[in-house]
Amino acid sequence: MENTVKLANNKYPIEDVLRRRWSTVAYSDRPVEKEKLLSLFEAARWAPSSANEQPWYFLIATKDDAESYARMLECLVPANVEWASRAPVLMLSVAKLHRSNGAINRHAFHDVGLAVGCMLVQATSLGLCVHQMGGFYIDKARTMFEIPDTHEPVAAIAIGYLGSVEGLPEHLRQRELTARTRKEISSFVYTGKWGKPAF
Amino acid sequence: MENTVKLANNKYPIEDVLRRRWSTVAYSDRPVEKEKLLSLFEAARWAPSSANEQPWYFLIATKDDAESYARMLECLVPANVEWASRAPVLMLSVAKLHRSNGAINRHAFHDVGLAVGCMLVQATSLGLCVHQMGGFYIDKARTMFEIPDTHEPVAAIAIGYLGSVEGLPEHLRQRELTARTRKEISSFVYTGKWGKPAF
Repeated sequence: MENTVKLANNKYPIEDVLRRRWSTVAYSDRPVEKEKLLSLFEAARWAPSSANEQPWYFLIATKDDAESYARMLECLVPANVEWASRAPVLMLSVAKLHRSNGAINRHAFHDVGLAVGCMLVQATSLGLCVHQMGGFYIDKARTMFEIPDTHEPVAAIAIGYLGSVEGLPEHLRQRELTARTRKEISSFVYTGKWGKPAF
Repeated sequence: MENTVKLANNKYPIEDVLRRRWSTVAYSDRPVEKEKLLSLFEAARWAPSSANEQPWYFLIATKDDAESYARMLECLVPANVEWASRAPVLMLSVAKLHRSNGAINRHAFHDVGLAVGCMLVQATSLGLCVHQMGGFYIDKARTMFEIPDTHEPVAAIAIGYLGSVEGLPEHLRQRELTARTRKEISSFVYTGKWGKPAF
């Protein structure tokens, strides 16, 4: 991972594993070892969740299971297929919408996101790149993988090793070589009342 | 942090910073340095989000701002006040519900969770403990901190250094000394179709 332009331009110190993460569009075709995939799910597994409901579920398709992989790819919007089809692993994150007691779990999506956050850290430390996508067909995914109404597809996820930008279409090459940007801390951390910067 | 009973009982290798995290109820009264708080928000800041909308917001109250802190504490349900009132820092996470283009952001809660996941990693690496709570009064929080309708309070968060279990009420002492439990990977990672374990 030597794409220094994608390093976080952080103002305050953060862990290297957070600084070096970005959502690549340049995947190598190198397969991901089963042991590494298991560590990703183990990382997600130990995330905290509201009342320890653990509402996270994942559907995974690796390229060596061509039929499953093709179906997963069909769930993505074309703009994502363009680069995600190079990734050796595709996934869907799925949220369980109700708690064990039947009540709606308003933290279902939140807790799936938190578990994926832990997975990203594990992936980066193992030299893997993870790119999540909102651009996929929810109903198609539900039908194709028989996801019950009690659960909802959340995001599509591509996983693999970093590849070269050479050979990428020009707009993807540009995207891969553009620095990441974020809003300032003063614009989202408040104290006392809404809108009053804490720092 | 020497509470080994809270270490993840992981089957596959994960980063130490994920393994050592847990939602403590035993806070020390040691204040949290401003520099460390800034690193927590910096870690959240560089999280990925759908279309880079960065829908995460935080309201923070430290104990040295007694008035703000007291208001934040009033938003918690009594069972949380019991232990969270020892934490030197309380926060609310808040989600922006719409995208810049006005459409509903179905990933708003998800992306707040993901940013908090990054914050947890940074906190653990700095020796801090973070405990999130679903048990707080959403409407009270909205009123007390003038949170607009365009945004929704997500979770309450306690942050601080680990304290001793001595002096905790017995049920909290027991809670702090009980191992963390999680469902098996085979129960939440599927392939090909819903319910078919991938591993």
